[in-house]
Amino acid sequence: MAHVLGQNQYGKAENRVVRITRNGNRHEIRDLNVSVALSGDLDDVHLTGSNANCLPTDTTKNTVFAYAKKFGIQSPENFGILLARHFVDDTPSIHRARIRVEEYVWDRIAIPDNNARFIGSQEVGHSFVRRNTEVRTSEIVYDGTGFQIISGLKDLVVMNSTNSEFWGYIKDEYTTLKEAYDRILATQVTARWKFGFTGVDDEQEPNWDRSYAQVRKHMLEAFAETYSYSLQQTLYSMGTRVLNNRPEVDEVRLELPNKHHFLVDLEPFGMENDNEVYYAADRMYGLIEGSVHREGVTPVIPVA
Amino acid sequence: MAHVLGQNQYGKAENRVVRITRNGNRHEIRDLNVSVALSGDLDDVHLTGSNANCLPTDTTKNTVFAYAKKFGIQSPENFGILLARHFVDDTPSIHRARIRVEEYVWDRIAIPDNNARFIGSQEVGHSFVRRNTEVRTSEIVYDGTGFQIISGLKDLVVMNSTNSEFWGYIKDEYTTLKEAYDRILATQVTARWKFGFTGVDDEQEPNWDRSYAQVRKHMLEAFAETYSYSLQQTLYSMGTRVLNNRPEVDEVRLELPNKHHFLVDLEPFGMENDNEVYYAADRMYGLIEGSVHREGVTPVIPVA
Amino acid sequence: MAHVLGQNQYGKAENRVVRITRNGNRHEIRDLNVSVALSGDLDDVHLTGSNANCLPTDTTKNTVFAYAKKFGIQSPENFGILLARHFVDDTPSIHRARIRVEEYVWDRIAIPDNNARFIGSQEVGHSFVRRNTEVRTSEIVYDGTGFQIISGLKDLVVMNSTNSEFWGYIKDEYTTLKEAYDRILATQVTARWKFGFTGVDDEQEPNWDRSYAQVRKHMLEAFAETYSYSLQQTLYSMGTRVLNNRPEVDEVRLELPNKHHFLVDLEPFGMENDNEVYYAADRMYGLIEGSVHREGVTPVIPVA
Amino acid sequence: MAHVLGQNQYGKAENRVVRITRNGNRHEIRDLNVSVALSGDLDDVHLTGSNANCLPTDTTKNTVFAYAKKFGIQSPENFGILLARHFVDDTPSIHRARIRVEEYVWDRIAIPDNNARFIGSQEVGHSFVRRNTEVRTSEIVYDGTGFQIISGLKDLVVMNSTNSEFWGYIKDEYTTLKEAYDRILATQVTARWKFGFTGVDDEQEPNWDRSYAQVRKHMLEAFAETYSYSLQQTLYSMGTRVLNNRPEVDEVRLELPNKHHFLVDLEPFGMENDNEVYYAADRMYGLIEGSVHREGVTPVIPVA
Repeated sequence: MAHVLGQNQYGKAENRVVRITRNGNRHEIRDLNVSVALSGDLDDVHLTGSNANCLPTDTTKNTVFAYAKKFGIQSPENFGILLARHFVDDTPSIHRARIRVEEYVWDRIAIPDNNARFIGSQEVGHSFVRRNTEVRTSEIVYDGTGFQIISGLKDLVVMNSTNSEFWGYIKDEYTTLKEAYDRILATQVTARWKFGFTGVDDEQEPNWDRSYAQVRKHMLEAFAETYSYSLQQTLYSMGTRVLNNRPEVDEVRLELPNKHHFLVDLEPFGMENDNEVYYAADRMYGLIEGSVHREGVTPVIPVA
Repeated sequence: MAHVLGQNQYGKAENRVVRITRNGNRHEIRDLNVSVALSGDLDDVHLTGSNANCLPTDTTKNTVFAYAKKFGIQSPENFGILLARHFVDDTPSIHRARIRVEEYVWDRIAIPDNNARFIGSQEVGHSFVRRNTEVRTSEIVYDGTGFQIISGLKDLVVMNSTNSEFWGYIKDEYTTLKEAYDRILATQVTARWKFGFTGVDDEQEPNWDRSYAQVRKHMLEAFAETYSYSLQQTLYSMGTRVLNNRPEVDEVRLELPNKHHFLVDLEPFGMENDNEVYYAADRMYGLIEGSVHREGVTPVIPVA
Repeated sequence: MAHVLGQNQYGKAENRVVRITRNGNRHEIRDLNVSVALSGDLDDVHLTGSNANCLPTDTTKNTVFAYAKKFGIQSPENFGILLARHFVDDTPSIHRARIRVEEYVWDRIAIPDNNARFIGSQEVGHSFVRRNTEVRTSEIVYDGTGFQIISGLKDLVVMNSTNSEFWGYIKDEYTTLKEAYDRILATQVTARWKFGFTGVDDEQEPNWDRSYAQVRKHMLEAFAETYSYSLQQTLYSMGTRVLNNRPEVDEVRLELPNKHHFLVDLEPFGMENDNEVYYAADRMYGLIEGSVHREGVTPVIPVA
Repeated sequence: MAHVLGQNQYGKAENRVVRITRNGNRHEIRDLNVSVALSGDLDDVHLTGSNANCLPTDTTKNTVFAYAKKFGIQSPENFGILLARHFVDDTPSIHRARIRVEEYVWDRIAIPDNNARFIGSQEVGHSFVRRNTEVRTSEIVYDGTGFQIISGLKDLVVMNSTNSEFWGYIKDEYTTLKEAYDRILATQVTARWKFGFTGVDDEQEPNWDRSYAQVRKHMLEAFAETYSYSLQQTLYSMGTRVLNNRPEVDEVRLELPNKHHFLVDLEPFGMENDNEVYYAADRMYGLIEGSVHREGVTPVIPVA
């Protein structure tokens, strides 16, 4: 047969694991969606029907839950590192593991103090409400020698209601767009950033949670502070802001859909629309994608 | 013909209107999804093909945007009242209007002060990020005489990691459920509450935004503080808490899916699961629905 | 306490049950999503924390699966009748059951005969592919005396590429719509129809599967054959066509979103658009709703 | 600045274009969702705020609609080729275009002949209903020299109710799965296949529509006919069947989520479940991915 089995992988996707740590009355929650993908000596599984080299996806699921108990969940990245190392190092036929993690974050529900005249409020140790719309993501790849870790976020919706222009572009026979000197700039940020960390030679892990919070903060600030002549410019500004401030990151890739807010034509009703009333459109949308990386670093984050 | 045209209505659904108010550098945003449904003398439109009594759905869309300019958006309820009144009072063939509104809330993006040693942070007047997962809802019905206003929220996800039990229930031949003395209680709240306000005799409108914030707060607090023997009990507690604290509300209806978090069986791996590791299931789910209303009030919020 | 517990119900939602019947090599599949909602003597469950009258939602789930084994699944309606009767008749504290069912339909995969010169093809008895986008629905309500059965479908997307006009409507100060004398009419049909069947006095059940196929057929034909001056007119035509042809049905309610296909303005590019190129918009959309019922019948299908 | 702008692209995504061709009373519909992504000399757009090299995404949208008029839509692939060629060849600053297309297929609505005693039925030339759940996909990449065309489908849901086993796999400390000798095998096929076609030297385009229909048919038949010892084996069988039958294809990549159907434990109710009643689970799911290509061909379809 002249056909070749190419890249292949398998595993259990979307394991929804919730880990609670109880420090007396104060509980901590980590709420993850974990997907496992394994590769290795799997030709026979495809070609002959022998499963002798196949670790069942059901077992990978069990491992996710057992590891949540055994080690707790320190962070999506740390948890993924533990799982990836286990699958590759402890299963002879598995040579590469890719762990993808989404995290859903919860806030404590706060109850205002009764006799405190609104000075403070008391957090309830066991009551939570889901925070924001954004989802924290991470992908951990391990091949038995080193790690490649790409973290990120998605569904972070942001808007600038001014400080955005768009003009001076190419005009061809199909151009009808009018130049804009004060427009809304809104987008739903998907970001991925790669860490320099490879785990070789006892290299120390970054503080993953702090790193995430800081990368997020720098991207939000860059979005807010950039006076924008194009969404590309804002994208580049967000990426470089992260590289300038977070030495543990050496590549940033962003996908920024231009969530169009169109000024409504109110002239037929005898009204002037002085940048006040917009129609928020779903589709179509401009989609701007790009990456920024340190000089000398080979970019690895794939195009979506 | 022995067939009768029954209840009918029409209009433009899901008008996504964004209204910006600019007070110098500080902008205010209200971001709504408005659906219009009109009823009236519309038999001919159905039976004969004459559209002489039909106000096009396109016109109802235009009106939503024009009213956003003309009156601004004070609150979902107030905006719906203005629209409903216009359609019924200004169009002879339209006798009833139902306006449904969803609101998406934005927070300002804050930039920490550079030389402020973390004392304060500076909000950017024109940069926003979408808040939380919950959506504020409102339905305004007007028939030319009075209003019926039902506000609410949906997609507010909450969890208690303890203080929930479930036991003492009916056991029949199909019962396998084990009694639980310490379980997770998680739900995605959909709530609707009816106001006493009818708009008759120059009755004054409630402060809709403040009312919303307070109803939400009381429901969250009741959820957090109730030691629960069933999700029904939590539901009743949430409803009565609102009625006890908000005189402008006279009926509350809640839909509470029981977002099951199942303890994972770790015994096969030689581990005890002491309420630490859970599997968050999507389907199936228990669904608990119910309403609470003041004595003497006829409940009107329909079953979903 | 001056608060009253109003309408309430509970049960397990979205039980995804698949039932296979094996007649030798030829298998039959019925694939349902079943939601159970029960009401009755449940005040204590809400007020005192006693679950003595509560049949757990987990038990209702078990019952769905056990009944699929015990009785098979003849049709969504028949299966719902069996379940509803059981919950009410066999549980003293339960006085009303509402069963909602969605059905997903599968087709056999056909393999063309090798030596048949394309004359025929051979169906594989155990291989299936999901049919169409539409979902068959049914709601069975039982209160111990009689049944109310409302069946339907949703997500049936249809289009007429001509034979639709819209003109002669009201023009007010917010009207900008141009009259249309040849437009696309496209909609995503949601339909519900009520049966006269109540199950009292050993009344015989209709042939539910045949009734569904016929109602669907008559609605599709009415949609295709109606020369339409408004979507309302098409709605009325679809409803009456069903009543005229299916005596077992006595009320039909339809929700027809007007899935707008806008003619693209090609004049800036020196082209005329002779009803050829359209932009298919997601939102906003006109939404037309209405019901038709036999004279003398009290309509019961609620507004969505 | 030590930062480098990496891979970047932009364009208008999700242009929903519907093209109708009218041959007298018989209309033809092609209904596409087209996404454009362009790359080229775009450093200035990111770095300096100059848009002089930027063809606006709005213009790419206009071009999609204008080309639908100008050339019609022969097939997703042919339409994408025309667009890609235009953007690269006619815009000096654009050096690479990637066009992604989804197609939604419609069937004619058929009306049975009135006086035909069910012998035949008459298709209505202008009335359509959306076919099946699957979506046809295509990605066309052009860099000014040659094309790379990857077509595919997604959301094709299939099931074998027997002829599937799974046993003989690795057992480790986290394995609890029981071996299965007769199980349901169900999956939601996502497939992509690359054509040998590059468009160089006046190479003739394949018949894209016929090719699609045949690839789909061969995958369905391979799924139905394979007695499966693992989903990987079925995957390999589907891929090789396509390569064996369609010379224009030289690489096939499949993503096959294992849509688990779990046998329900009916023993507590005194019933035996002889492969009759299943619970269709949403999450988690096994996910099997892999590609097959001709010997000597360098595989290019990226991992999802």
